[in-house]
Amino acid sequence: MNAPVKPYDIEAIRRDFPILSREVYGKPLVYLDNAASAQKPEVVIEAMSRLMREDYSNVHRGLHYLANASTEAYEAARESARRFLNAKHLEEIVFTRSSTGSLNTVASSLGRHLQIGEGDEIILSILEHHSNIVPWHYWRERHGAVIKWAGVDEDGNFLIEEFEKLITPRTKVVSLTHMSNAIGTILPIPEIAAICTARGIPLVVDGSQGAVHLPVDVQALGCDFYCFTGHKTYGPTGSGILWGRKEWLEKLPPYEGGGEMIVTVTEDTVTYNDPPHRFEAGTPAIIEAVGLGAALDYMMALGAENIAAHEARLGAYAMERLGAMNSIRIFGKARDKGAIVAFEMKGAHAHDVATVIDRAGVAVRAGTHCAMPLLARYGVTSTCRASFGLYNTLEEVDSLVEALQKAESLFA
Amino acid sequence: MNAPVKPYDIEAIRRDFPILSREVYGKPLVYLDNAASAQKPEVVIEAMSRLMREDYSNVHRGLHYLANASTEAYEAARESARRFLNAKHLEEIVFTRSSTGSLNTVASSLGRHLQIGEGDEIILSILEHHSNIVPWHYWRERHGAVIKWAGVDEDGNFLIEEFEKLITPRTKVVSLTHMSNAIGTILPIPEIAAICTARGIPLVVDGSQGAVHLPVDVQALGCDFYCFTGHKTYGPTGSGILWGRKEWLEKLPPYEGGGEMIVTVTEDTVTYNDPPHRFEAGTPAIIEAVGLGAALDYMMALGAENIAAHEARLGAYAMERLGAMNSIRIFGKARDKGAIVAFEMKGAHAHDVATVIDRAGVAVRAGTHCAMPLLARYGVTSTCRASFGLYNTLEEVDSLVEALQKAESLFA
Repeated sequence: MNAPVKPYDIEAIRRDFPILSREVYGKPLVYLDNAASAQKPEVVIEAMSRLMREDYSNVHRGLHYLANASTEAYEAARESARRFLNAKHLEEIVFTRSSTGSLNTVASSLGRHLQIGEGDEIILSILEHHSNIVPWHYWRERHGAVIKWAGVDEDGNFLIEEFEKLITPRTKVVSLTHMSNAIGTILPIPEIAAICTARGIPLVVDGSQGAVHLPVDVQALGCDFYCFTGHKTYGPTGSGILWGRKEWLEKLPPYEGGGEMIVTVTEDTVTYNDPPHRFEAGTPAIIEAVGLGAALDYMMALGAENIAAHEARLGAYAMERLGAMNSIRIFGKARDKGAIVAFEMKGAHAHDVATVIDRAGVAVRAGTHCAMPLLARYGVTSTCRASFGLYNTLEEVDSLVEALQKAESLFA
Repeated sequence: MNAPVKPYDIEAIRRDFPILSREVYGKPLVYLDNAASAQKPEVVIEAMSRLMREDYSNVHRGLHYLANASTEAYEAARESARRFLNAKHLEEIVFTRSSTGSLNTVASSLGRHLQIGEGDEIILSILEHHSNIVPWHYWRERHGAVIKWAGVDEDGNFLIEEFEKLITPRTKVVSLTHMSNAIGTILPIPEIAAICTARGIPLVVDGSQGAVHLPVDVQALGCDFYCFTGHKTYGPTGSGILWGRKEWLEKLPPYEGGGEMIVTVTEDTVTYNDPPHRFEAGTPAIIEAVGLGAALDYMMALGAENIAAHEARLGAYAMERLGAMNSIRIFGKARDKGAIVAFEMKGAHAHDVATVIDRAGVAVRAGTHCAMPLLARYGVTSTCRASFGLYNTLEEVDSLVEALQKAESLFA
C-alpha cells in the first residue's frame, strides 16, 4: 500500500524545491524558518496547477465529468492523509483550513458536546502555541472554565508526574502539543494518552510540528484527536487536517454551518450529515487538499523515519555548534527534542540578530513564536529560532553559525 | 488607481483560461457550472506558482527577506479586494477561507455582540444558500432565536413590501443574498439597506454570486457586511473575503482563536488585536490570498460593468432559447436577474438530464443547489441549473440547447 521509500539523497531532495536555489541579497538562501512555514516541492505546485489547468470543478455535488474528476482528486488526498496518519477509517479525516481551523473545530464541537461550564477544567501545557490556547480560553471567558497548565523543567522537559497530578474529577479535556514549536520538546503522547484513557478524558494533540518532524501513527499514539496544517508539511496554505477517532466524531455537533454538512434544511429545521462531511461546511479547499495530498505523498516516499533521522543529525549539530558560542544562550534542551533551536545573543535584541543574519541569506524567526506563556516561563519576551526541515543541510548550520559570529562582533 | 479596462475580446479572454480549451468525451468543454465554481485564468495559477517558487514564507511575524516579500504580496491582495469592493478602509477587508467562512464569522461574532437570545428575530430570504441559513439556524437551535423568511413571487421577484412588514422591534439582524445562486434573482440591496439603516438593524449581504456577476460598491450598497468567495470570482478555493464596516468590525468579538489575532496571551488572560487581524486567526491562506488578488485584478481589468453586460446577453439568450422549448419549465423569471437559468425537463429527473448532456461536453449542475427552502417553495426537490461566467459564449448556449434537444428525444 505504501509507496517505496526513496534513498535520502539530500541534493536531489533540494532540487525538488525550486525556491531553495534562489539567492537573497546575493547570498544563497539558508531557510531555517520551517517551524513557521515550510517551502513547497515542485510536485505540490504542479498538482495544484494541473488541477486548475485540466480538471477543476467544485466537488461532490456535481454529476458532470469535471465534477467527478475533481471529487476523485479531493478524495484521493483524503486517503493520502489517512495513510500518512495511519488512521483506521477514511471518514476520520476531516479537511480544514489549517491547524488553527482544526483546533477551533475541536475546541468548539468537543467543548459543546462535553458541556464545558463553570469550574470545569481544561489541561494545556505551558509549551502550547496560541492556536491551542486561545480556543480554550474562550471556554474560560465565556463559560467560566478553568485552564490548568502542565509545566516543564528548566531544560523544557515535560513533567508527566506533575501533569498527572493536575487531573481531577472536573477535568473535561486535555489538549497538548506533540512537539513544541518554540523549543522543540517532544511530549510522551502514548504515556499521556494512557493516563487520559484510563480516566475517560479525551486527549487532543496539536500535531502542527509533530506531523512535520515525527513519524505519526494515531492508532499507536492513542490520542482522540490529532491536528496538523498543510503549509508546514510542505503543502499549501489554506489546508489542514483534523483527525478524530470515529467514535468521537460521530458524537460531536457540527462546527461551521453551510452546504455539504447538512442532510436537510427547511425553514424551521436542520439535520446534519455524517463525519467527515459534518465538519466540512461549504466548498472545501479543493485545490489545497490536492496540493496537501501531493505533499504527504512526497513525505511518505521519503519516509517519516528517514526524515526524522536526517533532522536529528541537523538538530544535534546545531545544538553543538550554537552551544559552543559564548554569546549564545539556548532555550530548551529537552532529552527528547526535535530540530528547533531557540536562542538569544547576549547584549542583542532577537529582532536585531535576525535582521543582521538575514543579510547573510539566513532566514530565522525572532519574536514570541506564538508561545507567550512559554516565553514568560523563561522570563523573556522574544527569542531567535532556527528550525530545520527535511531539505536542510549540515552546511547550512555552518552558515547560521558563521552569520551569528559576524553578528556577535557587531553587537559586542 | 484602477487598471485600464481591456476591450471585451471574448476569444482572447477564453485563451486566458487554460481549461477552456480541453475536451470532454471528445467534445469541446462547455462549462456552465459557474455558480458552483468558476475556472481560473493563467494569471491566477501563475501568481500562486510564482509565490511558491520564488517568494514564499509565512507572513507578518518574520523579519527576513522572504517574510517581507510574502507579507507584501499578501497585503497587496488585501488592497485589490478593497478596490474591488470600493471599501473605504483597508482594515475593513478580512481574509477568510470562503463565503461560508465569512458568513460563519459574521453570524457568530455579530450574533454574540448583539446577544441574540430567546425570541429575538433574524430575517433571511427564501432565496438563501445554506451557507447563509445554517449559521443563523444555530442561533435558533442553541439560543431560541426565531428565523423569519422574506418571500418571492412565483417569478422569483423579491417582495420588498412583505420583507419590510417582517421587521419588528425584536429584529436583530437581516442577512440576505445579493443574487440567488439557484434562480438568479438580484435583490434591491440599496433599498433594503435604507430600510434596515432607518431602523438601526445591521444588514449582512451574501455576495457569493453578486461579487462575480455584478459591479459591487459596498459604500453605494449601504449594507454593513459583504461576503464573497475566491473560487467563484475566478480565484482559488480556500480563499474568501469578509468586508465589514469599520464601525462594526471594531465592536465585534473575535471568531476563531489562534496566532495573529491576539495582542497578549497569558495563563489567565487574552487581549485581542484590532481588525482585520482580530478575525484572521493563525497562518492565513497566503498563497490563496495572492491568487485571489490576481483574480480580482483580472476582473477589474475587464471591468465589472463589461462583465455584467456580456453576461446579461448570455442570460437573455439562454432564457429565450430554453423558454422556447416545450419540454422545459424554467424556475425564476425575476425582472432583475443574473445569468443563471434553473429548469426541469418534463418527464425526466434533473440528474438524468445533467448526466446525458454531460456526454455532449455540457457541464451543468443538478440538485438542490444548497437552496432547499427555495426548491420547497417551488414544490420540487431538484432542478438543472446552467450558470454563466465571463468567458461563456452565445454559441455555448446553442450547444446547451442542442444537447437538451437530444436529451428530450431520449426521455420523450
